[in-house]
Amino acid sequence: MTLPCKQRYKITIEYDGSNYCGFQRQNCEGTKTIEESLEEAIFKLTNHRHQIICAGRTDAGVHALGQVVHVDLPKIVDPFRIQMALNHYLSDESIVALKCEMVDQDFHARFDAKTRHYRYILVNRSARPILKKHFAYHFPKKISLEEMIEASKFFLGLHDFSSFRDAQCQSSSPIRTISKIEILRNGDELYFDLSAKSFLHHMVRNIVGTLLWVGEGRIKANQIKRILEAKDRRLSGPNVPAHGLYFVGVDY
Amino acid sequence: MTLPCKQRYKITIEYDGSNYCGFQRQNCEGTKTIEESLEEAIFKLTNHRHQIICAGRTDAGVHALGQVVHVDLPKIVDPFRIQMALNHYLSDESIVALKCEMVDQDFHARFDAKTRHYRYILVNRSARPILKKHFAYHFPKKISLEEMIEASKFFLGLHDFSSFRDAQCQSSSPIRTISKIEILRNGDELYFDLSAKSFLHHMVRNIVGTLLWVGEGRIKANQIKRILEAKDRRLSGPNVPAHGLYFVGVDY
Repeated sequence: MTLPCKQRYKITIEYDGSNYCGFQRQNCEGTKTIEESLEEAIFKLTNHRHQIICAGRTDAGVHALGQVVHVDLPKIVDPFRIQMALNHYLSDESIVALKCEMVDQDFHARFDAKTRHYRYILVNRSARPILKKHFAYHFPKKISLEEMIEASKFFLGLHDFSSFRDAQCQSSSPIRTISKIEILRNGDELYFDLSAKSFLHHMVRNIVGTLLWVGEGRIKANQIKRILEAKDRRLSGPNVPAHGLYFVGVDY
Repeated sequence: MTLPCKQRYKITIEYDGSNYCGFQRQNCEGTKTIEESLEEAIFKLTNHRHQIICAGRTDAGVHALGQVVHVDLPKIVDPFRIQMALNHYLSDESIVALKCEMVDQDFHARFDAKTRHYRYILVNRSARPILKKHFAYHFPKKISLEEMIEASKFFLGLHDFSSFRDAQCQSSSPIRTISKIEILRNGDELYFDLSAKSFLHHMVRNIVGTLLWVGEGRIKANQIKRILEAKDRRLSGPNVPAHGLYFVGVDY
């Protein structure tokens, strides 16, 4: 008996993180994870358990506009039909497959990622957000966009980000390279766009929390340099809430 | 005994129309209206019933980024405190006061409106929207933006919009003047921005439904002219769903 030929698929997905306990399968009472829900849909489709690998594990509450996963499926099937079938089995979930492509067997969603793009959205006004209630952080204080933009430049390039990593971060190195950091205002919304090959745990949200300290005048823009150099998490700003964060996409 | 001095307030509000049976107070089983919820909050604030007047009644499911209402309150109170207090009493609702201003006693939210702005949002891709699930219409078919833009020009200016008004429309005249109509693509989202002094019932959604007929090639752009001239609702496209429509704001 010969084993069926395997085909690797790259699947791009969107999800509303509000109702999930993050991406990764775990013992999280009462709440599902994205990984569990996706693998369950793949099980319904193929009648077999298949492990998926994602580009970046997102925390509970974090949304994705373009998370990428790969999975090996036993038969070669038209990718569009896989996408449609997955979306059928995901119809009760807050997850959808945007695209499904056949890729070489050596493609790896996590290790081949060249750049990961994140966006953090906040609503900067006194009234709480209604339409973006679950999709943006409410920051009612007055903030200076100019000061934050000045401060953001200190993060660009290669740095030791020990001051901006979570205590639980499992990465062996705190060195990362931020290739883009932009802050834009659109009405009363603020977007923080960050790109890097990879990020440490909570790094984006800790950076945004620290930039908000600058924005509200609590610290000066040039103090970012010292906080980076100190390699001490106690000196940086708060980890802003997960529901403002979006995993926008991955370049391979 | 002298009656307390009255002061008129103009209040700008945002709401998520998903959980409401439209703006106007009515006998709608099990569901509240925006008007009822707002008047209830004003009652909690003032201990009296006060009627509010809005710039434009929105249908069930339609959202607002900048609906405007006016209300007369018996005492002169700092408008910001009214806004804060209202938002306190609205905390369980999907409604928020964005701004509260004192206005002259002859200001009228409905009759003084010079221009009303609406936006219709749709997600144009095969996969259903997740993050915009309740906030955009899913239109999976391929559509031509160029054809729709060409067609949209026929709506500009003064016309008899009988072909685009709902059978239930109570307006005495079908004549309206569209001062702006723009269609923009942003990734897989399409925005239809329409402005006019006022609109007929379902007019924006009927126009968008007809433009989508043009976009998918079902009718030619120049047929819009004939549909307008025919003054026959049976010739225009469908009334697209309410949850893609936003009342963006009002100019006075």
